Amino acid sequence: MESRRVEALADGIFAISMTLLVLELRVPALPATATPMQLGGELLHAWPKFAAYCGSFLILGVLWIGHHNQFHYIRRTDRHFLWINIFFLMWVGSMPYFTALLGTFIGNRLAAIAYGAALMVTGAVLYWEWSYAAKHGLIGEDATPEIVRATGHRILIGLRGYAIALGVSLINVPAGLALYVLIPLFYLRRSAIDRHLAAHHPHVPM
Amino acid sequence: MESRRVEALADGIFAISMTLLVLELRVPALPATATPMQLGGELLHAWPKFAAYCGSFLILGVLWIGHHNQFHYIRRTDRHFLWINIFFLMWVGSMPYFTALLGTFIGNRLAAIAYGAALMVTGAVLYWEWSYAAKHGLIGEDATPEIVRATGHRILIGLRGYAIALGVSLINVPAGLALYVLIPLFYLRRSAIDRHLAAHHPHVPM
Amino acid sequence: MESRRVEALADGIFAISMTLLVLELRVPALPATATPMQLGGELLHAWPKFAAYCGSFLILGVLWIGHHNQFHYIRRTDRHFLWINIFFLMWVGSMPYFTALLGTFIGNRLAAIAYGAALMVTGAVLYWEWSYAAKHGLIGEDATPEIVRATGHRILIGLRGYAIALGVSLINVPAGLALYVLIPLFYLRRSAIDRHLAAHHPHVPM
Amino acid sequence: MESRRVEALADGIFAISMTLLVLELRVPALPATATPMQLGGELLHAWPKFAAYCGSFLILGVLWIGHHNQFHYIRRTDRHFLWINIFFLMWVGSMPYFTALLGTFIGNRLAAIAYGAALMVTGAVLYWEWSYAAKHGLIGEDATPEIVRATGHRILIGLRGYAIALGVSLINVPAGLALYVLIPLFYLRRSAIDRHLAAHHPHVPM
Repeated sequence: MESRRVEALADGIFAISMTLLVLELRVPALPATATPMQLGGELLHAWPKFAAYCGSFLILGVLWIGHHNQFHYIRRTDRHFLWINIFFLMWVGSMPYFTALLGTFIGNRLAAIAYGAALMVTGAVLYWEWSYAAKHGLIGEDATPEIVRATGHRILIGLRGYAIALGVSLINVPAGLALYVLIPLFYLRRSAIDRHLAAHHPHVPM
Repeated sequence: MESRRVEALADGIFAISMTLLVLELRVPALPATATPMQLGGELLHAWPKFAAYCGSFLILGVLWIGHHNQFHYIRRTDRHFLWINIFFLMWVGSMPYFTALLGTFIGNRLAAIAYGAALMVTGAVLYWEWSYAAKHGLIGEDATPEIVRATGHRILIGLRGYAIALGVSLINVPAGLALYVLIPLFYLRRSAIDRHLAAHHPHVPM
Repeated sequence: MESRRVEALADGIFAISMTLLVLELRVPALPATATPMQLGGELLHAWPKFAAYCGSFLILGVLWIGHHNQFHYIRRTDRHFLWINIFFLMWVGSMPYFTALLGTFIGNRLAAIAYGAALMVTGAVLYWEWSYAAKHGLIGEDATPEIVRATGHRILIGLRGYAIALGVSLINVPAGLALYVLIPLFYLRRSAIDRHLAAHHPHVPM
Repeated sequence: MESRRVEALADGIFAISMTLLVLELRVPALPATATPMQLGGELLHAWPKFAAYCGSFLILGVLWIGHHNQFHYIRRTDRHFLWINIFFLMWVGSMPYFTALLGTFIGNRLAAIAYGAALMVTGAVLYWEWSYAAKHGLIGEDATPEIVRATGHRILIGLRGYAIALGVSLINVPAGLALYVLIPLFYLRRSAIDRHLAAHHPHVPM
């Protein structure tokens, strides 16, 4: 109950951040009388924007599921926790900007680095939030030490992935960008941890 | 309970996507001292934008009601289901873009096709979501095989309608567009299925 | 319970529509080195935008309270009711546009008429929604015939007010605009109806 | 229960207002082929926008926590309370505008004053809302006179801080701006009041 409005704010910011991504998909600046051929050419030319939209939507989806899973166990909040959460949401809210930067300067090393760095900070704050909640008794009894570790571990795996993608984009920008998109797909897999937890906690969404 | 936050995210993305449509209704680029006559002329000239706003708002309304009806029966979620749902929402979130494309290039065959194709993919993902939920035991006992079939069937009817509209727009763009707007009206009708379900399940919103 | 998600969608669209109004408050197009004097001049010059923001925010507030009060009594929904509600929300979602039109063309008769007409249609659909719910047994036992009548009556009073304001703006635009802003203030008053209902239904928010 | 939808609207407006701040973070107007060096230069040059984003996000976070804490105790609403709340949300919704003003005209005294004045009015309305609720019996039994006083006191401390920042910005704009950012950090501290309340009301989020 205590955490209900925190979740409402978080869901709102996730939903808006995910939907604002669409504002970067600009309609081609052609006269209204453009032929289908001309329009198609412009749309194909704008592929980085579409890729950035899809990639960021999926990445925000990963983060939202991560946040959702944490709050499944969180029973109480305190002032510091609320602030960590707001700090996390500040980074979630900035994703449309970093996505626009990447979509506009697709081959630019700095844009790729800024995007990856923003993802890493966001993931790190999510990890901090979970560690804080676990250490300060804000989670329920049903979160066994095993679940606490597995939940944190899953975030760390993503962080490591983003760190690798960031490193790769220093050497080869397109390869780094491809990794950013592939990492969310990793979360699609029902991992060994998932299967283990599912066996013991059949009602936990994974 | 498990599906509460999934619904919150979905309702948020639907609400934002529907409201962002308004950003495409641009105020005429006239000096502030324009006469009512000049303003009226410009507004009439912008009719495709208004039509696209209304059409897309209603279509998103259809999809939202469809999603709403599915979640009436959904009791549990799993990771794959969450991902199908995020994929569905990615298409919902892209509607303001396809609407803007259509409203800007109203007579353009490619814009009409892109719009129809986006609708079809969105509907297909909604169907996939429902099939997945039904097959993997995520729905409640109250969803009889008959309801499962009727709910899926209703989505398929819409998909078939959009496919026909898409085909028509290949031959005649205005006729295809008219069909896109007419299909949501079909959902207004209280169908035979509705009446049948209503008789057996008086508390189901239809 | 059935009406929970309908309320969630409505609250989302109201919240977004009210917040998108801010996008019309454009930062003055001055160089970053402008003096406070120059900035102040531009801000004063933009007063119609600020007035339109405040007016529309309050008007949407009136409509939201009206919707809120209706749903206090609504227990069930049916397909037609959902559609009337989506139609209502379509008009709510269009308010940022009509506000922008009014704020940009402040002295223009057509902008004033379009704004007033949009308000009247929105109010009329809200009235339709309530009448439909009352006639089709979607409201709870606690909504006595007296409450049904009083709730409808309150919407009609607003509609009459907007009709008068619209008529006045045909003759004198500034006077009509002033009325649009004054009408929400009318709803601030705790009316005789309110007092009567409050005495009999102490838990009803009014 | 009565206050549920009021909270939903408020959470929505807070979430949207916080997320719309991102729209002011404009992608540099450079050709897509810009070098990382050029892009970096432009991004560094845009630091006031980033600072304004962070500052305003945190300030809205403070206000949201304040609102959240109030509603923890609020049990009932009446028409006047709803209106004070809508008036409060009108100021919350205007924050993206004042943030854009400040981010665009960073050294401008008038922009700094307008920003501070908006914060003060917002805080004052939040104080008014709480006083009204306390005086008109809208809060629960669990809100002891001590809690009522402490909650109001906390808002007043912030107001005093913003008044000082506003005064400082009249003399020295950068110092005033620094204060605006530092004040939210004050709320991070678990104050003496917090500790006292926490001891007596272990379930209250602080």
